[in-house]
Amino acid sequence: MSATAERRDPFKPAARVASQNQDVWTIVNEAAAASPIQPIVNMGQGFFGYNPPQFVIEAAKASLDKVECNQYSPTKGRPRLKKAIANAYSPFFGREINPDTEVTITTGANEGMLSAFMAFVEPGDEVIVFEPFFDQYISNIEMPGGKVVYVPMHPPPNGSTTTSSASEWKIDMHQLEAAITPRTRMIVLNSPHNPIGKVFSREELLAVGELCVKHGIIILSDEVYDRLYYVPFTRVATLSPEIERLTLTVGSGGKNFYATGWRVGWLIGPENLIKYVSAAHTRICYSSVSPLQEATAIGFEEADKHGFWEQSKREMRAKMTKFNAVWDELGLPYSDPEGGYFVLVNMSRVKMPADYDFPPHVASRPRDFKLSWFLIKELGVAAIPPTEFFTPQNAHIVEDWLRFAVCKEDSVLESAMERLRGLKKYIHD
Amino acid sequence: MSATAERRDPFKPAARVASQNQDVWTIVNEAAAASPIQPIVNMGQGFFGYNPPQFVIEAAKASLDKVECNQYSPTKGRPRLKKAIANAYSPFFGREINPDTEVTITTGANEGMLSAFMAFVEPGDEVIVFEPFFDQYISNIEMPGGKVVYVPMHPPPNGSTTTSSASEWKIDMHQLEAAITPRTRMIVLNSPHNPIGKVFSREELLAVGELCVKHGIIILSDEVYDRLYYVPFTRVATLSPEIERLTLTVGSGGKNFYATGWRVGWLIGPENLIKYVSAAHTRICYSSVSPLQEATAIGFEEADKHGFWEQSKREMRAKMTKFNAVWDELGLPYSDPEGGYFVLVNMSRVKMPADYDFPPHVASRPRDFKLSWFLIKELGVAAIPPTEFFTPQNAHIVEDWLRFAVCKEDSVLESAMERLRGLKKYIHD
Repeated sequence: MSATAERRDPFKPAARVASQNQDVWTIVNEAAAASPIQPIVNMGQGFFGYNPPQFVIEAAKASLDKVECNQYSPTKGRPRLKKAIANAYSPFFGREINPDTEVTITTGANEGMLSAFMAFVEPGDEVIVFEPFFDQYISNIEMPGGKVVYVPMHPPPNGSTTTSSASEWKIDMHQLEAAITPRTRMIVLNSPHNPIGKVFSREELLAVGELCVKHGIIILSDEVYDRLYYVPFTRVATLSPEIERLTLTVGSGGKNFYATGWRVGWLIGPENLIKYVSAAHTRICYSSVSPLQEATAIGFEEADKHGFWEQSKREMRAKMTKFNAVWDELGLPYSDPEGGYFVLVNMSRVKMPADYDFPPHVASRPRDFKLSWFLIKELGVAAIPPTEFFTPQNAHIVEDWLRFAVCKEDSVLESAMERLRGLKKYIHD
Repeated sequence: MSATAERRDPFKPAARVASQNQDVWTIVNEAAAASPIQPIVNMGQGFFGYNPPQFVIEAAKASLDKVECNQYSPTKGRPRLKKAIANAYSPFFGREINPDTEVTITTGANEGMLSAFMAFVEPGDEVIVFEPFFDQYISNIEMPGGKVVYVPMHPPPNGSTTTSSASEWKIDMHQLEAAITPRTRMIVLNSPHNPIGKVFSREELLAVGELCVKHGIIILSDEVYDRLYYVPFTRVATLSPEIERLTLTVGSGGKNFYATGWRVGWLIGPENLIKYVSAAHTRICYSSVSPLQEATAIGFEEADKHGFWEQSKREMRAKMTKFNAVWDELGLPYSDPEGGYFVLVNMSRVKMPADYDFPPHVASRPRDFKLSWFLIKELGVAAIPPTEFFTPQNAHIVEDWLRFAVCKEDSVLESAMERLRGLKKYIHD
């Protein structure tokens, strides 16, 4: 047999990319593009409908005039940005963060989390993720050969009839402890939570943190919405020295400064964890985008002077309140967010026509995909079906809910509300 | 035994990042920072000493004023950039490149190559790399569990005595064919070559390409210096339809537009390869930096109008000629580059004092590391020791050479030349 004959198909992809299933973003975007109502009011993906603050834009433009800001940055990030982040976060952490050893810059929070998994997960290691989860976690854990172990969050028991605080979504601590095995290497936390809008309480975080200390599990705490909380916000890393030494905290310039396309993120944590995250990042992206790192540094340096953080929180909360009035008006219950810019709305009272014609790739999905399709086609409003953020066995938990992103111009929120009033005729008990 | 007792050290890094050896960039940068001569003239790393052209800077600034240019781009890249690249490269490829299916945007060429390896390399698969190699190739191949198979390039036989064309570095085709096994999945080509400056001839590329067709091997052709060639330049993808269907061509906005910190790269290739590269990229970085993708698109759209490509090539060649005159003057032979912005210089005639005091981490390395250290400390000029781009068993091939990057301001080149004249007293036969 010749070498050629023995060889497998040269075009065969690796298993890690072989699945070419349509993801939720593609399905929603394609539906939106094909809707008879144009333009669609897009409340689906969580990008901002407005620009970063002007002082940050000006900082980016000024950086583009500097030779060194257009060339490679150090792989761990620009010293000015690491220092600005250390200065900004030291008060939250209640101690001086060392910018050189305890901060590392990544290509967005997403690649930062991948770098953390690449740094600590060996093939077959387990990583615990709560459902619902941000979908990129899963492929990021699977890339280094990790196995995702899912633990569901439980919705408020009366979620289909009554609006209640997002705090009512709960973890069952016994369920969490039962999911831990000798191969559990890391756990992913997310607070404020996407898509639920829950801000985990100090007590909840302490319970999770102590379990991780007991079992020697690294905590990867995704805190990218850390400037948008409407109740007291606790950072898990601050709860005890034992928890802190196991915790990597993830932040995002894109989320903080309304620039999801900038791809500037960071991790903060103890030196003996951060150094391996940096090493993984170097092997993945080499270094991150220089002029926008510089602009993000200036953003942190000047944010307080501009009262930006308070303004940011105040404005987002106002958007949330403004938009959710339409659900009160329609009598549709929602999970009232404690943080972030997503709201989950319960649509069990929305009755779609029994003979409604869904395309096969929607018809085969849970009810929330049908609701999403229906809203796009009939009302011209796009929202995200959250079963995408659950495993199939737990998808039923959210099959009546849809996720709306309110990080849009007020005029867009008003258009959305006006269109959503069209749901009235489909609402029955 | 308790679960805690069974658990391994929670801080143990994954094998893929466990090595924390100092890389060449760190060693050279630290030596430069500690040199008694300050500031150092840094001809080490290949970043540009000047800004991107003004029309590209202006494009970046204008993009920052547009809301959608600051938010997530599609994972495969901004349509405007994919179209600009397809338009720019279709004439080179002699056919219309489909921007939607045959181009994908990545976070720099580096993450683009990682995405290609992640797309096609399963654990244990082999990837052939020529020595010298760009160091990031190795970790990028090892991340998905690939095994690097090295094939050395051979220097001009009289390289230590006579300046000759970089074309004199040769591949032994028998050696290459002998390196192929049934597990060979991909091969990495690089033309114009870093650090050699060789532009592979049509005949050489055809020989490699036909071997890949025969054995069903995907060609990953790193052509990031594709606008800087001083002899005729052939793209391997254009040699035959059979070769093209196996070839992924890698490009770099950072290298094309003097902006190594922008992290905008791309791959061009057949749809059935590109779609898996895109899938891997989505799982690694989600999407790439939006405003600088837009600026790169405008760069391509307007480059011809500004005569940029011709100017770029003319200016870099002039820098090369200007700088290399110092070697002619000193009587040190070099490998005369056919492309790119690096020159390899042979320093076998440079005699360092026998009792010179090198620190242990330099003393333990091949002679080129000592030469690099010596030049930094005694002359204040930084250059890169190329044995870092070889396996230990083949490092001897370049232990007398140093790599200089000429992509610097003319005044910097003049300072470097003036300082390098200080080598005269160390040159003996």
